Amino acid sequence: MFEAAELGQTLSKADYDAGLAKLRPALLEAHFALKDTKVPVIVIVSGADGAGKGEVVHRLNEWLDPRGVDTQAFWQTSDEERERPRYWRFWRALPARGRIGILFGSWYSEPIIRRVYGEIKTSKLDTEMDRIAFFEKLLADDGAVIVKLWFHLSKKAQRRRLKDLASNPKTRSRVLPSDWKHFKFYDKFTEVSERALRRTDAGHAPWHLIEAADRRYRELTAGQILLQAIQAKLAGLQKAKTAAAPAKPAKTTARRGKSGITILDHVGLSQRLSDKEYAAQLEKQQSRLTRLTWAAWEKKVASVALFEGWDAAGKGSAIRRVTAAMDPRLYRIIPIAAPTDEERARHYLWRFWRHLPRAGMTTIFDRSWYGRVLVERVEGFAREDEWKRAFLEISDFEEQLAESGIVVSKFWIHIGKDEQLRRFKQRESIAIKRYKITDEDWRNRGQWDAYKAAINDMVAHTSTEFAPWTLVAGNDKKFARVQIVKTLCQHLEAAL
Amino acid sequence: MFEAAELGQTLSKADYDAGLAKLRPALLEAHFALKDTKVPVIVIVSGADGAGKGEVVHRLNEWLDPRGVDTQAFWQTSDEERERPRYWRFWRALPARGRIGILFGSWYSEPIIRRVYGEIKTSKLDTEMDRIAFFEKLLADDGAVIVKLWFHLSKKAQRRRLKDLASNPKTRSRVLPSDWKHFKFYDKFTEVSERALRRTDAGHAPWHLIEAADRRYRELTAGQILLQAIQAKLAGLQKAKTAAAPAKPAKTTARRGKSGITILDHVGLSQRLSDKEYAAQLEKQQSRLTRLTWAAWEKKVASVALFEGWDAAGKGSAIRRVTAAMDPRLYRIIPIAAPTDEERARHYLWRFWRHLPRAGMTTIFDRSWYGRVLVERVEGFAREDEWKRAFLEISDFEEQLAESGIVVSKFWIHIGKDEQLRRFKQRESIAIKRYKITDEDWRNRGQWDAYKAAINDMVAHTSTEFAPWTLVAGNDKKFARVQIVKTLCQHLEAAL
Repeated sequence: MFEAAELGQTLSKADYDAGLAKLRPALLEAHFALKDTKVPVIVIVSGADGAGKGEVVHRLNEWLDPRGVDTQAFWQTSDEERERPRYWRFWRALPARGRIGILFGSWYSEPIIRRVYGEIKTSKLDTEMDRIAFFEKLLADDGAVIVKLWFHLSKKAQRRRLKDLASNPKTRSRVLPSDWKHFKFYDKFTEVSERALRRTDAGHAPWHLIEAADRRYRELTAGQILLQAIQAKLAGLQKAKTAAAPAKPAKTTARRGKSGITILDHVGLSQRLSDKEYAAQLEKQQSRLTRLTWAAWEKKVASVALFEGWDAAGKGSAIRRVTAAMDPRLYRIIPIAAPTDEERARHYLWRFWRHLPRAGMTTIFDRSWYGRVLVERVEGFAREDEWKRAFLEISDFEEQLAESGIVVSKFWIHIGKDEQLRRFKQRESIAIKRYKITDEDWRNRGQWDAYKAAINDMVAHTSTEFAPWTLVAGNDKKFARVQIVKTLCQHLEAAL
Repeated sequence: MFEAAELGQTLSKADYDAGLAKLRPALLEAHFALKDTKVPVIVIVSGADGAGKGEVVHRLNEWLDPRGVDTQAFWQTSDEERERPRYWRFWRALPARGRIGILFGSWYSEPIIRRVYGEIKTSKLDTEMDRIAFFEKLLADDGAVIVKLWFHLSKKAQRRRLKDLASNPKTRSRVLPSDWKHFKFYDKFTEVSERALRRTDAGHAPWHLIEAADRRYRELTAGQILLQAIQAKLAGLQKAKTAAAPAKPAKTTARRGKSGITILDHVGLSQRLSDKEYAAQLEKQQSRLTRLTWAAWEKKVASVALFEGWDAAGKGSAIRRVTAAMDPRLYRIIPIAAPTDEERARHYLWRFWRHLPRAGMTTIFDRSWYGRVLVERVEGFAREDEWKRAFLEISDFEEQLAESGIVVSKFWIHIGKDEQLRRFKQRESIAIKRYKITDEDWRNRGQWDAYKAAINDMVAHTSTEFAPWTLVAGNDKKFARVQIVKTLCQHLEAAL
């Protein structure tokens, strides 16, 4: 594979200047056109040590409008990063729509280096590359342009380059001790990189091999590849625009058996607790939760608990019974309403990644990423292809949480349609509860069957071994609350 | 002072229930009215160990609409926090406008505890309290309601309370080992707290002492105080609204001597460098900067460099000459354009705090917080009282950076009015530079004298020992670039 980047490519100064004179205005123009789109551009700068990657980063910053560029170097990790799932730091660094993010180092570096040094096996490398492929697909599906540049040096060229850098007082400090250490592993590094690149070379995120020995050649080539990638995307958008306007996204059709029976119909809504049973059991489970959340803190086990349910199902009051048992230092509640513009400017999962708990802590989501396959699906805010692929995107997200040791609990609080009506009416009659009932609630109620189908699909697709759904019988609030606190305890106990 | 909170206040269940029946709907109503305002509410929950602060936090969350509340506990610090100025973690936690932030622990905790344990002297405690007073004033000036609750226990009550908590299996885990340790210092803690509270008891951020021995009394009282504070603010807003609409903010009047001479007229704009001198000196200074930025990284010294200047003064190209000498892993450029809605929802300094560098790193601001006293002043986006107090707010901010060891460099790139005209025209004629010139630039140019006066005031008020302004002679870009790189080197050298 890398032979293609050992051809001795060079550029004369005249050719470089001529190329640059064409490239720069075109690149700026493309960058400005990009600003008005919803497209984030992700440029990954990677490859051999001493291949001039840092200089390329400088050059791209020079050629683009610096106000529209975010350059992010992945290097040392902070404890806030280490205490969260590995991809947290990458999500954190993703550029907003209309901007160009230049990533110096990326999600590729760690698995490749670890494989080179024998810390992981080839099978693990492959798994990591598959995760990357999935991640890049998810970003591309969201509209991102992904430009992956790999700067290659032949063994001879790399040795010469490191020596040159080290002998020049101006550049000496750019050679890190680790660079020479890596050089000893040149052959292994080449072999592992080839494997990694092959496995992640996709149409929506292709690798570009660039021969890096000649400065002028590598820089101009990098700029040209970036330009072509942006231009191609802009042309695609233009084409889509001039094509017939797509039909309004089809609302969900309740897909279920003719009987209309879904998984929700199996929730035993008649289950209840007497006041006495409730008081005793809640007290018992809350004490247990208090103990367990402190134990989790000591063992640095983090938790994510999310609450979904019909309007008026009692999410809020259930959450309060949970938090009443927890020290306020140990949890945060994240209510999910309309996204901020910083959130809207990124992939829909970004706003959830940003709130993941640190080691030992709990994040409680009051509504969650499942909005994608519930309200966004039913109301047609997400296209069918978008909410359909969300099942897999969400499962992958939750798998990453589970892999990092986070205890994931997901509650759907179910109530009957009649019970909902009773509660709506009751809420309207009680002063301090009136704020809880809005026109939207009534509108949602009109879509009961569509939601029921969506919920059924959601549970079917996303109840996994590592993040199972708990369907809570909510007609009796007392029963529901005890069940929820108890389930959280069971999940924590299993993990500790 | 605390005698006022040792009166044996209690509430019967009946009185509590009656009070609550009035409080809850009123609190919810106030909370909902708050959402449509630009007012953030900051509730500080502090006081003695074992005073039930955590329970109060739970209760407030229960009484308010949880979707409009952010509860934040200050406890252990992360390395990302430790590597930044101390207040970074507090800025990070400030609630957005229209929301209620409940701070469990706050900026008071650390100085008080450190003084109790004798780690700092009284004079240092006083300095810390003055800093807090300034910080709270700044937040209040920005429209925040600040509710400071201090929960007090007599010595006897505290001992009893800790024992009770420890003997109950359900609450045992709430007693931290540090609580008993603190108890031994009860008298000292009381003395230090009194001093701290007295020094920070201001009209815009008053302390409320709450006798904490009785659960019902302390919780209801806390809720009532919060309600009154929000109601008072809402009433004030209403009054301001119904009063005659304020006159449009006066645009700046160029305040300067009759001669029109300002500090800018002393910048030697005729200074130039030949191409040859430029090449040699830039090369030399850049090498020096490369070396120094790596040394700063090794010694964990962070830097902030900000660039202001007339339109077309050459900020962008100067910044590129700086970054060309730095490893991309060591710096980030933050271009300051329109704020995002998350930024608009907070104090104007919030967006700068969030980008402060970690230890060893550099943040380069392309435009900065000085927009407050430049464009916002000249265009009338900030009222006169707002931009006038900004001088002190900014100096305090920069002092905090300097105190935490950050090297602060501030550049105003000055050019003559004729030179600006020449560059505007030139930009319009060159394809890749055309994007740099907009109608706004021309409009700003029409305000030259108003800007000149604003710049003069800015430099006069904010050129401090810890963060001096560097006025750069920018008519010759070459001269300017060398001066900038060289100044950065000097600042770094002095700090290392």
